[in-house]
Amino acid sequence: MDTKLNKEALLYHTSKRPGKLEVISSKPCDSAYDLSLAYTPGVAEPCLRIKENPDDVYKYTIKGNLVAIITNGTAVLGLGNLGALASKPVMEGKAMLLKKYADINAFDIELDTTDVDIFVRTVITMSPTFGAINLENIKAPECFEIEKRLIAALNIPVMHDDQHGTAIVSAAGLLNACEIAGKKLQNIKIVVNGAGSAAMACSNMYLSLGVKKENLLMLDNKGVISKNRIDLSKYKQAFAINTNLSTLAQAVESADVFIGLSKANLMTPKMVQSMAENPIVFALANPNPEITYNEAIKAKSGIIYASGRSDIPNQINNVLGFPYIFRAALDVRAIKINMEMKKAAVYALASIAKEPFLSIDSSESLSFGRDYFIPRPSDLRLLRTIVPAVAKAAIDSGVARIDIPDMISYIKELDKRIIK
Amino acid sequence: MDTKLNKEALLYHTSKRPGKLEVISSKPCDSAYDLSLAYTPGVAEPCLRIKENPDDVYKYTIKGNLVAIITNGTAVLGLGNLGALASKPVMEGKAMLLKKYADINAFDIELDTTDVDIFVRTVITMSPTFGAINLENIKAPECFEIEKRLIAALNIPVMHDDQHGTAIVSAAGLLNACEIAGKKLQNIKIVVNGAGSAAMACSNMYLSLGVKKENLLMLDNKGVISKNRIDLSKYKQAFAINTNLSTLAQAVESADVFIGLSKANLMTPKMVQSMAENPIVFALANPNPEITYNEAIKAKSGIIYASGRSDIPNQINNVLGFPYIFRAALDVRAIKINMEMKKAAVYALASIAKEPFLSIDSSESLSFGRDYFIPRPSDLRLLRTIVPAVAKAAIDSGVARIDIPDMISYIKELDKRIIK
Repeated sequence: MDTKLNKEALLYHTSKRPGKLEVISSKPCDSAYDLSLAYTPGVAEPCLRIKENPDDVYKYTIKGNLVAIITNGTAVLGLGNLGALASKPVMEGKAMLLKKYADINAFDIELDTTDVDIFVRTVITMSPTFGAINLENIKAPECFEIEKRLIAALNIPVMHDDQHGTAIVSAAGLLNACEIAGKKLQNIKIVVNGAGSAAMACSNMYLSLGVKKENLLMLDNKGVISKNRIDLSKYKQAFAINTNLSTLAQAVESADVFIGLSKANLMTPKMVQSMAENPIVFALANPNPEITYNEAIKAKSGIIYASGRSDIPNQINNVLGFPYIFRAALDVRAIKINMEMKKAAVYALASIAKEPFLSIDSSESLSFGRDYFIPRPSDLRLLRTIVPAVAKAAIDSGVARIDIPDMISYIKELDKRIIK
Repeated sequence: MDTKLNKEALLYHTSKRPGKLEVISSKPCDSAYDLSLAYTPGVAEPCLRIKENPDDVYKYTIKGNLVAIITNGTAVLGLGNLGALASKPVMEGKAMLLKKYADINAFDIELDTTDVDIFVRTVITMSPTFGAINLENIKAPECFEIEKRLIAALNIPVMHDDQHGTAIVSAAGLLNACEIAGKKLQNIKIVVNGAGSAAMACSNMYLSLGVKKENLLMLDNKGVISKNRIDLSKYKQAFAINTNLSTLAQAVESADVFIGLSKANLMTPKMVQSMAENPIVFALANPNPEITYNEAIKAKSGIIYASGRSDIPNQINNVLGFPYIFRAALDVRAIKINMEMKKAAVYALASIAKEPFLSIDSSESLSFGRDYFIPRPSDLRLLRTIVPAVAKAAIDSGVARIDIPDMISYIKELDKRIIK
């Protein structure tokens, strides 16, 4: 790792006051009269209104714009099980991103438990506080069970971002990469290297967008997940296909797409050369990809490459998804985040890169193509494009509790949320 | 209730955006480089440091300046059991006060449970997130059990403010009122009307300051808590004394002090007239006291009166206590808030009113006496007087995990925390 960056990251976290968040008042609280409205005796009135009509909690409190970012620290970034305490810097960072990109308030909550029952019970018990739940950095397979049970138990949206955020953003990239390569999702042969929760959510998303099940090969650290394997969990079994292919080198031969959700340097230039023409390589291992940009570009002409890094073109970054999905889900008061909403996010995100991008300071101008098929995190169009699309999908699919009768006014309101 | 105030309180809570809190970034997050420090890849470094040395969580996250305000809404203000959702406006207000008066960040967490085991388990599970726990608006007797079990289980401070905040502030008022009246705590006969959690905590505090147990009469809604009663819970039994007095009117006759933690208008002018010379009446029922200021003053000359109201002299308000106690507990990283710290807060708070008060805009000047024996919430001396006293008590009594070698510099740092 970059020692200079590490040092500066430590300095950044300690400078002025420790940590990255601050909870402030959004209302005046200067005079004694202000305080008599905010606290006793005035505060009794909104309490009584909410008691009478529980939905009034959205009128008088921040619940409707408050997301809990909840983890137990069992799968922190690529660092593994660091536990609750050591995951806090990541969770505070996530809260910063929700505020910056979508004007959402977020509390990070680190849970000291690896027990699924206690995790679920704890979140349900504290759920009145929040408008939505963002699960984060929980290891598989517990994350599947936790998400499933919370979605069933709660009437507020619950999303495990490591799964669905990655699925949405990589799928948007895949749509655009296929267009550039002249490939059709229905026909592509795709290799997903890695069989963690993100890999499974990505695969499910690609299948729902038209990829054929028999054309999707998933690999874990023992090789291709095929029906020949007898060591598979029920989660992996769902992706097992009939094949005699076993190694990564065998799997990628003549494949159209490689999605790496595994480890640094697992892919060789030779493997890239063995892929189909105009191959699509998303090397998403963080911070070091399965194959570097330079190696991949040199290995085969026509290659279309993306990674998780911000210092090379086409960064597949969850921040392109979750702030906008939660913004929409909160705004229509969705009871869940369903596949329709996630797919709407994919198409909206993909559409943005089709139009040229000009950075705010005009220093950078990008047009759709091999070097630009995923929007930049700083692109202000993300908010005004993805959010209305996801909100509409929620309304159309019947999970929205409130309607947005006038989308034009709604987009104007969204523009006001952007923190300058 | 005042309809105009109620209307304005509703408007206040809805104006601009619903609710009263906002979570913002305390660090720059504008450039891509900022984000690479705040989030991936830079954030990995503080995570790994904390994994290596758990105490580093205080260096790299907001834990050390973050209080959870936790309730289940079973005893909201004087409104009773409103439940988790309807308590949220009060909890958000409490978070505002912690920020305003002591620069503490606070998350309000509303728990949907009346079960003591689930409440305790939930708080323990989420405790890695926080530097301290402020329990709030939980009904008796559950609040006793919850607080006791959490203090035993956690190595961060836990305080139920409805109990101890009220005890601290009323005790400071009592010390000063006794001085003005020429009474000694060791000799006063005191009547505590009300037998809820605040009444019990107040009584325990008065006893620890020197009031004699046989001179303290507590009353519940059935009358004096005496050893004759056979209907008492174990909590009330602790305050039962040998007496044949039964009614409030009998109890207050020749009493030096009346502490009302009960209901509006329970005390009559006649009862006040029956008290000892220079009687002390703290009519703390909210928003309407046991006897009004005007009635009490008219009833007996020499009376020393305080209430919970901000519109008459001597407001007994928890906000004079909890922000400073938590500030001190966080700053010395106390493992608990013990009686030594609470008593230090009492004496420090009482001392402030001894010196003349001049409001910031110089519009108001007050001197120690019948009309001013409790500081105003806006008094900037509260922070710089109470916090060092409580911090010192924590250090001296062995519950502080870090020392403050130089109190003068510490007070200078405290002054910087005041939000202008």
